[in-house]
Amino acid sequence: MTLLPFYIDDLIKTALTEDINYIDSTADLLIDENSRSDAYFMAKADGVLCGVEVAARVFTLLDPETKVTFLASEGERISKGQRIAEISGHTREMLKAERTALNLIQHMSGIATYTRKCVDAVAGTKASIADTRKTLPGLRAIQKYAVTVGGGRNHRYNLTDAAMLKDNHIDAYGSITGAVNALRQKAGHMLQIEVETRDIEEVKEALQCGVNVIMLDNMSADEMKKACELVNGKAKTEASGNVTLENIRAVAETGVDIISLGALTHSVTAFDISMKWGK
Amino acid sequence: MTLLPFYIDDLIKTALTEDINYIDSTADLLIDENSRSDAYFMAKADGVLCGVEVAARVFTLLDPETKVTFLASEGERISKGQRIAEISGHTREMLKAERTALNLIQHMSGIATYTRKCVDAVAGTKASIADTRKTLPGLRAIQKYAVTVGGGRNHRYNLTDAAMLKDNHIDAYGSITGAVNALRQKAGHMLQIEVETRDIEEVKEALQCGVNVIMLDNMSADEMKKACELVNGKAKTEASGNVTLENIRAVAETGVDIISLGALTHSVTAFDISMKWGK
Amino acid sequence: MTLLPFYIDDLIKTALTEDINYIDSTADLLIDENSRSDAYFMAKADGVLCGVEVAARVFTLLDPETKVTFLASEGERISKGQRIAEISGHTREMLKAERTALNLIQHMSGIATYTRKCVDAVAGTKASIADTRKTLPGLRAIQKYAVTVGGGRNHRYNLTDAAMLKDNHIDAYGSITGAVNALRQKAGHMLQIEVETRDIEEVKEALQCGVNVIMLDNMSADEMKKACELVNGKAKTEASGNVTLENIRAVAETGVDIISLGALTHSVTAFDISMKWGK
Amino acid sequence: MTLLPFYIDDLIKTALTEDINYIDSTADLLIDENSRSDAYFMAKADGVLCGVEVAARVFTLLDPETKVTFLASEGERISKGQRIAEISGHTREMLKAERTALNLIQHMSGIATYTRKCVDAVAGTKASIADTRKTLPGLRAIQKYAVTVGGGRNHRYNLTDAAMLKDNHIDAYGSITGAVNALRQKAGHMLQIEVETRDIEEVKEALQCGVNVIMLDNMSADEMKKACELVNGKAKTEASGNVTLENIRAVAETGVDIISLGALTHSVTAFDISMKWGK
Amino acid sequence: MTLLPFYIDDLIKTALTEDINYIDSTADLLIDENSRSDAYFMAKADGVLCGVEVAARVFTLLDPETKVTFLASEGERISKGQRIAEISGHTREMLKAERTALNLIQHMSGIATYTRKCVDAVAGTKASIADTRKTLPGLRAIQKYAVTVGGGRNHRYNLTDAAMLKDNHIDAYGSITGAVNALRQKAGHMLQIEVETRDIEEVKEALQCGVNVIMLDNMSADEMKKACELVNGKAKTEASGNVTLENIRAVAETGVDIISLGALTHSVTAFDISMKWGK
Amino acid sequence: MTLLPFYIDDLIKTALTEDINYIDSTADLLIDENSRSDAYFMAKADGVLCGVEVAARVFTLLDPETKVTFLASEGERISKGQRIAEISGHTREMLKAERTALNLIQHMSGIATYTRKCVDAVAGTKASIADTRKTLPGLRAIQKYAVTVGGGRNHRYNLTDAAMLKDNHIDAYGSITGAVNALRQKAGHMLQIEVETRDIEEVKEALQCGVNVIMLDNMSADEMKKACELVNGKAKTEASGNVTLENIRAVAETGVDIISLGALTHSVTAFDISMKWGK
Repeated sequence: MTLLPFYIDDLIKTALTEDINYIDSTADLLIDENSRSDAYFMAKADGVLCGVEVAARVFTLLDPETKVTFLASEGERISKGQRIAEISGHTREMLKAERTALNLIQHMSGIATYTRKCVDAVAGTKASIADTRKTLPGLRAIQKYAVTVGGGRNHRYNLTDAAMLKDNHIDAYGSITGAVNALRQKAGHMLQIEVETRDIEEVKEALQCGVNVIMLDNMSADEMKKACELVNGKAKTEASGNVTLENIRAVAETGVDIISLGALTHSVTAFDISMKWGK
Repeated sequence: MTLLPFYIDDLIKTALTEDINYIDSTADLLIDENSRSDAYFMAKADGVLCGVEVAARVFTLLDPETKVTFLASEGERISKGQRIAEISGHTREMLKAERTALNLIQHMSGIATYTRKCVDAVAGTKASIADTRKTLPGLRAIQKYAVTVGGGRNHRYNLTDAAMLKDNHIDAYGSITGAVNALRQKAGHMLQIEVETRDIEEVKEALQCGVNVIMLDNMSADEMKKACELVNGKAKTEASGNVTLENIRAVAETGVDIISLGALTHSVTAFDISMKWGK
Repeated sequence: MTLLPFYIDDLIKTALTEDINYIDSTADLLIDENSRSDAYFMAKADGVLCGVEVAARVFTLLDPETKVTFLASEGERISKGQRIAEISGHTREMLKAERTALNLIQHMSGIATYTRKCVDAVAGTKASIADTRKTLPGLRAIQKYAVTVGGGRNHRYNLTDAAMLKDNHIDAYGSITGAVNALRQKAGHMLQIEVETRDIEEVKEALQCGVNVIMLDNMSADEMKKACELVNGKAKTEASGNVTLENIRAVAETGVDIISLGALTHSVTAFDISMKWGK
Repeated sequence: MTLLPFYIDDLIKTALTEDINYIDSTADLLIDENSRSDAYFMAKADGVLCGVEVAARVFTLLDPETKVTFLASEGERISKGQRIAEISGHTREMLKAERTALNLIQHMSGIATYTRKCVDAVAGTKASIADTRKTLPGLRAIQKYAVTVGGGRNHRYNLTDAAMLKDNHIDAYGSITGAVNALRQKAGHMLQIEVETRDIEEVKEALQCGVNVIMLDNMSADEMKKACELVNGKAKTEASGNVTLENIRAVAETGVDIISLGALTHSVTAFDISMKWGK
Repeated sequence: MTLLPFYIDDLIKTALTEDINYIDSTADLLIDENSRSDAYFMAKADGVLCGVEVAARVFTLLDPETKVTFLASEGERISKGQRIAEISGHTREMLKAERTALNLIQHMSGIATYTRKCVDAVAGTKASIADTRKTLPGLRAIQKYAVTVGGGRNHRYNLTDAAMLKDNHIDAYGSITGAVNALRQKAGHMLQIEVETRDIEEVKEALQCGVNVIMLDNMSADEMKKACELVNGKAKTEASGNVTLENIRAVAETGVDIISLGALTHSVTAFDISMKWGK
Repeated sequence: MTLLPFYIDDLIKTALTEDINYIDSTADLLIDENSRSDAYFMAKADGVLCGVEVAARVFTLLDPETKVTFLASEGERISKGQRIAEISGHTREMLKAERTALNLIQHMSGIATYTRKCVDAVAGTKASIADTRKTLPGLRAIQKYAVTVGGGRNHRYNLTDAAMLKDNHIDAYGSITGAVNALRQKAGHMLQIEVETRDIEEVKEALQCGVNVIMLDNMSADEMKKACELVNGKAKTEASGNVTLENIRAVAETGVDIISLGALTHSVTAFDISMKWGK
């Protein structure tokens, strides 16, 4: 996993503190502290696994004596009924970790699974699937990571990373050209520039400015196709807006390089995984 | 809003730091620091508004000079095209706050809207809609709050708050009765006790123990009906598992007091709100 | 210990940072970094031990090579002169950890010892001893934990957990009945309800509302007795206010279920434990 | 108040988060958000006031619209029944702040009151009353501050601030002289040096070394008197160990400069202040 | 100032906590809390001002009643003896803020001043001056900001922002071409790619791969000139390594686009500004 | 190392988070996660080593499997070309840790090296070299530690630790004597007192007050000599202001006890250490 280990630990501590706070008023009062159990994670649908190391860390962070054995790996396509990991440790700590571990793995696998569906839908075209900044507070890193696990690629991570010129920026300088030139006067040399365009004229102007990426904002498939022919590899093209699993193939076939979808991270359906007790 | 103001502020700072990090490489380099703008939030679908004060706080926390006027209130049913709030301030700070504010209000309104649909679907029965502990790390408070704004009620907030006896706990004592008695030996007097049951026999035993709430776990509508008749108000009954908008009415008509749904918070569809620039 | 390990670690880091800040200007300048020592904790009075694992963690957190051997266990009645734990490690780190470890174990054992005295004083009656929300900032978890180690039970952990209706709440609705009904319209099904009562009439009204717990606020022993007879097991009764070790037996004999004392946590006398150097 | 305002704010946020967590399940559900109330703080015993600004800050931090009027000032001797401050604001927020504010002001006034008793008991002698490092985790600053409000003086704040040589340090160098010389080879010029002594011989040796302060550890009054005569102003003398309100005058009359008491901060009796609702 | 206000506040709180900790044992004990004073910041050398708003915030964060009047603005060239800002407020709080404010403004102005010298030295060439990742822990944002205030430009902010291929990366794929192609298979479309080259052959290969930036690592002026002619605007060229104020003009005249210097941030000479008391 | 291990860990986490944020867009995408490498740290100049354990901790904190072997120890004089430490571990994590580790060790060794030069320059005189409060935000502990590693001594750590009377404090009481007496009325007995003096008259007055340290502020060598003769060991003398490596010997020869230099920490030149890949 490429994420920083202490970032993951802090996220898990936040989640466990929310979910436990002081004690587990059921397990801590009822279960003997020396009691030990076995359990396993099982997929309850077909999908793409993501977050299995994060989920495992919930158990070991709460109780370093817990043993976790992975039976499927990050990014693997898994099937309904498949065992994902086996956990063995103190019953009390396993009960306390269960909900938090499931909340994380279900969310991350939900993102990876949906991303994979989009990636599969455009297979054979040159289009990549990309995320956006439409993420949930505090979860951007695990959400963007899950997108890559599902086969997608990351758009810029934050507002510092790369420039994207929208109406407001362009209006302040009268034209795309004006805004791009102004930006180049000040920007560092490592800053990628993308411009939002709404019609072919704007695409042309952006192209002439030599920007790195041209976003085709809410354009029809026809317009996008024309735009891509015009650009012809001299910049990258990104389709954005109103893309769904239903129309994504059509969008990809216009020749765009990237299709970005906010829904990958802002409207996640949890992927159903349950924790079964016993061997 | 009932949430702690400094909790909200910390959540927003986390989100803004994720989204901006160092600077906005577009707005900070292109927009004059004295430039001022107007904008408004507009609903792009019908739903229930939630998080408008949180979204407003994103703007004022980043720039206390920003003015926000609310045109709709927390929990209000809003329609596609309806203006929700007007914002006026420095263009640069408004551009920097935009994405974070939308991410929050869309997520919270998504929860409230879906909860409201469930509440409406059971209208006229005595069933309440409740959330679960299936929330996202760091977001439990705003998610549970959004459920109440949508007309739902909160289940226990965390593992400290109330006891819920499941298989593991019961197995450790041989019977529901054994486990409940053991719990009562140690638990504080403010601790509510709920027991998960899988059939009528277990319901009977739980009832005899005088527990506060009996969960009917993955039972058929018929079984639930029988269970409710048996319980007859001497405890509360909670239906849980496999409830969807499609079958929720049927579940409610069995006579249960509470229907809890993990999907309210673990599989949220963002409610579409956009920020339009101009008056 | 049921407390979250990372909560304990954070509390200890806060304490060590307060107590050391930059360096130990005595030990760090005078003691060779390879010097090793033995020491032990010894009780200087009779009481109930609490916090021994927390104290041990101060040493191992500062220096993982430190060895701690427990000679008495959490909740054990200990006598003046009894050895509690043996510590062996680097002299420098042991000197730096000493004060913080003692501050914690003395405070926690002080609470457990006093709670145990109260519990013993009511032995044979059905009364339990409970804590309150009168705790010190940042220390609620270790204080409430120490109460349970001393044989007491925990009242609600915070304002979210359970409802307690006092004058202000009741006045807003004109009557106990009005307030309880209003609360039930909105409250989740896991919320326990307690009502403060000042006389028999209020006890009757609360009982009729079916609340879970009735607090008998500053009542005389006679009144409490009458109230308990009236309630007769249909709700729990809690005595609160002006309870001391002197009168606690008399209060318990009125038949109340719970006696809560703020003094358990707001007026703690440190239990004297010292760290002796040498084997 | 000399304490850092953001330290106080952070402490209050910690306390409010512990005490409220998500919502006030009583007030937030029952009290109208626009309801306003008046209340006041009243002393229920005679003592010394401390923490009134901290308590006031609890209310204004939770709701900046709350008005607090101070009727007594920090360090003032107050009498049973005396009004200390008046508070006016939103009922809901005042209810939520009440317990945290009282917990703080009662603890701080408890320290100031007890310190003042010690200071009064030694009036007319040259002895000052000082605190120790026997404080509670996270509370050292408000505890040491309360000691000064009660008329006491602060011993070193932490291990960095000043050096105190005890057995372990001295043993490592064979003699007080050896240890003091070793320390001077390395210590910064702003480091005050205190040495613990157990008999007159050690006092003599410490004096010869020119240390700043000589601690007379668990000496009898007679020994202390002799030690003070010997020292004769060439260093400061500090009495420590087994000092109580009963024997403190006798200790002071031996001529020591400072009497330090761990009990000022490790065994605090909360000073009883209550919040009365109404004008 | 483009930096996030709460990032600045947190940095200042960290600094004030380090510098004050509990109280100012001089000012808090000696200066009357109502005493007020005037003071001003004065440059003690010629240079470029940076951090004046940050320094002002130290005063207002500690005491919101403090008034600060700016007499010079961010990025302005200032002369020895010039007044920079006037401060008026409580003496005690001004004394406590003084050192922290000076530490910040002197460091930031030191960076801006040195950056400006570099920028001036290459005036008339097309070379820009850029920073590196050689910054101090926790200070990257204010250091990179100060570079821009001095007329420099920011290199990538962190490892996420942009890719830079060095030996290790290239060796893993056998050639620059292999590594660049591998990267493009996985990288998001907003990722700028820079490659380190050590001779003309590598420059050619990097150019052929169409990378965005070519770093000329420790090349002689002659080599750099040849490289720039070869690249001829098809990528950006960055000179790095062993650049000093003495040779920077010669480097710029080779035709490189960017000259990056670690010394801008890793070897800062504080710019001398003092706080004078009085009007 | 005397610094608190969790303080060091937190500082490193802050630095790594700044430098990496989400992922290393180069190494994480290009280097196989199982790839392993060897590398070593090499001095590129002569100097004094400081921070080698801190630098090592960057690697092991990011990846506990990394092995670090120290070839030189803290405080050792090292020569250009000398190997300092060998590192062996996962290539990816080593690449991610490299910059942060170097930034820390270069800064700390820079301080130690310059301090050592000052210490050497005054060798044979009785003068010690001391730091000041002119440190960088968040870095005071590692900076002051590096000064001691270089052979210097620490001045007071913060404003709580010791009192230093300057003009403002003295003016408030009309005279040095007035201010010192006022301070003694309130100060704890562990508080060292230093007074800033500007001429012989003030030195005399400070001496008469029996203060611990007399600062000779910006005095000429002649004046300092006279002052030292006058003081004659009855207090410590500290030279401060305008001291450089050029004139430090002359200052030391005036007979002062301490020479303090802000430049030790506010104007640090990074000591050049590089990380070489390979065995």
